[in-house]
Amino acid sequence: MKIINSTQNKNLKQLCKLHTKKERDHTGLFLVEGAHMIEEAERAQCLMEVFLLEGMNPFFEDRTTFCSAPVLQKLSNQNSQAKIIGLCKKPKQDPVQENAVLILDDIQDPGNAGTLIRTAFSFGIDKIYCSEHTVDFYNPKVLQASQGAIFHIPIQRDNLQNVISAHQKKGMRILGTCLHQKSVPLSQVRVQEPYGIVLGNEGQGVHPELLDLCDDLIKIEMEQFESLNVAIAGGILMYTLRSRFHHA
Amino acid sequence: MKIINSTQNKNLKQLCKLHTKKERDHTGLFLVEGAHMIEEAERAQCLMEVFLLEGMNPFFEDRTTFCSAPVLQKLSNQNSQAKIIGLCKKPKQDPVQENAVLILDDIQDPGNAGTLIRTAFSFGIDKIYCSEHTVDFYNPKVLQASQGAIFHIPIQRDNLQNVISAHQKKGMRILGTCLHQKSVPLSQVRVQEPYGIVLGNEGQGVHPELLDLCDDLIKIEMEQFESLNVAIAGGILMYTLRSRFHHA
Repeated sequence: MKIINSTQNKNLKQLCKLHTKKERDHTGLFLVEGAHMIEEAERAQCLMEVFLLEGMNPFFEDRTTFCSAPVLQKLSNQNSQAKIIGLCKKPKQDPVQENAVLILDDIQDPGNAGTLIRTAFSFGIDKIYCSEHTVDFYNPKVLQASQGAIFHIPIQRDNLQNVISAHQKKGMRILGTCLHQKSVPLSQVRVQEPYGIVLGNEGQGVHPELLDLCDDLIKIEMEQFESLNVAIAGGILMYTLRSRFHHA
Repeated sequence: MKIINSTQNKNLKQLCKLHTKKERDHTGLFLVEGAHMIEEAERAQCLMEVFLLEGMNPFFEDRTTFCSAPVLQKLSNQNSQAKIIGLCKKPKQDPVQENAVLILDDIQDPGNAGTLIRTAFSFGIDKIYCSEHTVDFYNPKVLQASQGAIFHIPIQRDNLQNVISAHQKKGMRILGTCLHQKSVPLSQVRVQEPYGIVLGNEGQGVHPELLDLCDDLIKIEMEQFESLNVAIAGGILMYTLRSRFHHA
């Protein structure tokens, strides 16, 4: 039985480096918290080790290290006492058939990013592309909001102008979201697969140079206020476009 | 020109009590942060006083008190240095024609509650009802996520069994959300106004005793995962049902 009792433990110090994006990028490893996330990691064959509060029942016995409360808290990103933390490797990105993709242009809020990942997976989006300045998807708040979907949907960080052009050459229709008066209201949008939905930064929207590349500009009709959270807008778009094919 | 320079100032201490729900309930007052929220408060005739970082240009001159950085920070709920904080009274709740209402059963996450308020207002929901155990809507995180919509949509905290029954007697159709196999998929839902949408707690969903009262149980079709954030689900439902009347 492996045990870590000292907050000065060498392995612990190494693991704590995973709180930084730099170390996550460098190692391809990251930490998740809570039983649900760990189960999703295992389901995706990404779970390497489990760090468990001493006194609890082993979770994946062969890979469990028991930790004192202060040790686990040092590894945790949450305020309340952590009970279980998993060390994971980033999921393998196998090529997929791309019928519907989500393209995220500089989403900054971790909650929005995580919720978009969760929603995309629930609505059968095949892959997510994000710009280089989008928040790191292995940030603990993103992981938490994704509810484990991060393990099951392919994700690629890339230059979005290249992504859009390459997909258009393969026949994909790219839908940019923009509250411009000339944008097509969602209820009038008719689109065949394959298509891609571009969502923009919380404050600035989609970059104009990306909107210029899009095949169509679309918007969600509102009664007033002209203001939707980007994750809400994404959810409505993904559901509505998908349901026109699958549930009409 | 009014100035507060001391963190021991009596008025300041009184204002800081508004960080608690108890004091907000007792006084009918609350604090908002940022220029956008303060403009929305003024638009709704709810803005009473503005507390501004010293050296900045007065915002609403007649009602501005300049504060030192530590004073304003004491009044603030955010980590970064606050610049402008408004003291507001809760909006008057005039009776409205209720064609579409949102009914929130024990929503706990402030971000979800605020986003639902913002989304409801954007899609022309006429009124929001919430259960007694729903998070306080004048909590700073709820206010922030509402983006000021809190000032423009009537809200009533009440016993939801009574709310549902009373509305049904007036001819409103109540739609409960539930991932049960027998629930009607959203794409097949046809409903006339007036209607009410019931959304449930993040972990538990809608209480069974409320679902029993509902006229229909509906669900959002998903490809996999069977998991949507409640604010995303609410956004999809509000948009989809509303757009069948107004944009079809």
